[in-house]
Amino acid sequence: MQGKEYLMIPGPTPVPPSVMNAMSRPMFGHRSEEFAAMHKDIIGKLQKVFQTTNDLFVLTNSGTGSMETAVANIVSPGDKVLTLVGGKFGERWSELATAYKAEVLQEDFAWGTPVDLKKVEELLNANTDIKVVFATFNETSTGVLNDIEGLGKLIAKTPALFVVDGVSGVGGIEIKTDAWNVDILVTGSQKALMLPPGLGVISVSSKAWDKIENNTSPRYYFNLVKARKSMEKWNTAYTPAVSLFVGLDASLDMMLEEGLDNVYARHKLLRDATRAAIGALGLELMTQDSYASPVITSVYAPEGIGSDDIRKVLKQDFDITFAGGQAKLKNKIFRIAHMGFADKMDVLLAISGLEMALAKVGHKVELGKGVKAAQEVFLGRQK
Amino acid sequence: MQGKEYLMIPGPTPVPPSVMNAMSRPMFGHRSEEFAAMHKDIIGKLQKVFQTTNDLFVLTNSGTGSMETAVANIVSPGDKVLTLVGGKFGERWSELATAYKAEVLQEDFAWGTPVDLKKVEELLNANTDIKVVFATFNETSTGVLNDIEGLGKLIAKTPALFVVDGVSGVGGIEIKTDAWNVDILVTGSQKALMLPPGLGVISVSSKAWDKIENNTSPRYYFNLVKARKSMEKWNTAYTPAVSLFVGLDASLDMMLEEGLDNVYARHKLLRDATRAAIGALGLELMTQDSYASPVITSVYAPEGIGSDDIRKVLKQDFDITFAGGQAKLKNKIFRIAHMGFADKMDVLLAISGLEMALAKVGHKVELGKGVKAAQEVFLGRQK
Repeated sequence: MQGKEYLMIPGPTPVPPSVMNAMSRPMFGHRSEEFAAMHKDIIGKLQKVFQTTNDLFVLTNSGTGSMETAVANIVSPGDKVLTLVGGKFGERWSELATAYKAEVLQEDFAWGTPVDLKKVEELLNANTDIKVVFATFNETSTGVLNDIEGLGKLIAKTPALFVVDGVSGVGGIEIKTDAWNVDILVTGSQKALMLPPGLGVISVSSKAWDKIENNTSPRYYFNLVKARKSMEKWNTAYTPAVSLFVGLDASLDMMLEEGLDNVYARHKLLRDATRAAIGALGLELMTQDSYASPVITSVYAPEGIGSDDIRKVLKQDFDITFAGGQAKLKNKIFRIAHMGFADKMDVLLAISGLEMALAKVGHKVELGKGVKAAQEVFLGRQK
Repeated sequence: MQGKEYLMIPGPTPVPPSVMNAMSRPMFGHRSEEFAAMHKDIIGKLQKVFQTTNDLFVLTNSGTGSMETAVANIVSPGDKVLTLVGGKFGERWSELATAYKAEVLQEDFAWGTPVDLKKVEELLNANTDIKVVFATFNETSTGVLNDIEGLGKLIAKTPALFVVDGVSGVGGIEIKTDAWNVDILVTGSQKALMLPPGLGVISVSSKAWDKIENNTSPRYYFNLVKARKSMEKWNTAYTPAVSLFVGLDASLDMMLEEGLDNVYARHKLLRDATRAAIGALGLELMTQDSYASPVITSVYAPEGIGSDDIRKVLKQDFDITFAGGQAKLKNKIFRIAHMGFADKMDVLLAISGLEMALAKVGHKVELGKGVKAAQEVFLGRQK
């Protein structure tokens, strides 16, 4: 073990060498023509990833900062908002909306299950004064993929805005911002976009602009009206994280060269192989096939074993880092990210490490059985 | 000209190769022991730069985002605050405080001149209900260094908090946070700290914490109480810009190895040489010696010549980028940064380029005269 590390957490994810190289170029000014030209290119490429003609902004902050950008711009004190919560990141929408003094109607769905469209329809019918609906595309804490298309159809019939946290999904899972009526979609750099943390991206529909322009919450750094003004010259309102922009330009090129359809298919394949392996090992998956995230798989530790004990062995003995459970799932589940710069061999490596770690913590496991199940998926031989 | 660029703007500044190398290491998780250990080291090193035992936080956002962190945490709606304004960045404090619905008492000082302590004393005496005083350490838009020590003495006699924008100064100019009674000091990564943009740093005194804990403004990403809680485990509340943290660790090592006293003396020497050269060329400096910034020198373009014309020639013919004037100084001044990863030869290069550019735009100039004056400073031969 010579410092060779296998990072399989849902962000930050490994950064491709070509992106690292791109970011190592000498620094340049953010008010330069060069920056403006790069910025314009980046937005054009992001429009393809977002499948949108809406305005797009690259923000210098984390995913949470980008989520707050959405809230600060569209929530005025006293606004009634609906948050659809099935995990830690759904809760974040409630916390943010509460911080901005919204009247928060929070609807909980059991962690590990998706948002129930029927329930949402009832809520929208019963609360016609809802101004914004907040949802999570890929709930990172559980590995649930929510039905954004279905939600978009319901919300589009109402005056409410539809705001989606796409932080861990966008770039790894197809999302159709415009076709699915998403007014604001937010993502972060350190997930499927294959960059270090430090950037967010947000898209804004014309329906959302109406609300933004009249919003009364205090905001300055997060002010999208200012950001839009600066974009007239492909500029940013405040100093952007220049090197990360350079990296974003490079990572988007990688994704477009692979082809977005291929990128999305690759993530689904990695999910299917991971799930087949977990099943073969007799462990319990947290999610069902119909709403399983293509970018992260949550697995319950075997009865009587802490998931953090498995993770500790993986890290110490094999330099593999899985994510643990968050909040109420702490020490109960581990999460394997197959997100961004990840391919078949990463899954096989993760599963083979997991098999050894399970053996080490005293769980009876047939070595190689999970690997074989994943290999069969990759070879197209699974049932 | 083979893409060799000379970046002499007040941020982003050139990033040293060793820092670039450090940042190119493979990505790792921000909830890891490794990150926590690095984070702890970084804070210890920053305490030396800030000369403080106050709490320190590294923030994932720009300098403006870090300034807003200060405002969002200590300004409640209706609070009376005093802003001391002598340039674009002083104005930013007013804009931020206004965004957070403070009652803003703005005192203007002519651009290019420092804050007048006597005037401030009068204002403090006449307005004993001032809750916060906002000042600028190094006003980047003009190259004025303000007397923070003197201001700190006045403000410490009052209940008001003293908040200082140190974005373009900290790391290049000595500041004594504790000895000078600065309650909150803010800086950014892309100036004298020699990093790409994307990080801020903020220090918080115990006097400031009292106000922060009872503040009523909405904040989430900028919430310092949450940040403090996370610091108990050398963690961050939200995903940090990991690679920039790695770079910060490396750049602080460089600064401490050089010795902070040497770093500060180097910047003063570069200032003195730059000013001597400008004087020898017969151009007008914007600031007087007694309050001239060690990290940036503002110069009026000769009568009848636009400063942007000079800058255009510098860029096109010599790959040198100076900053222009901002707001009311647009096309009137140019600004030469000698900030961060800058040394003697950078100044000589800047001046020799400037001489040629002046000749090209039709200004009568004795080539080599400015260079000679700077050389004399470096050789210790100036009067």
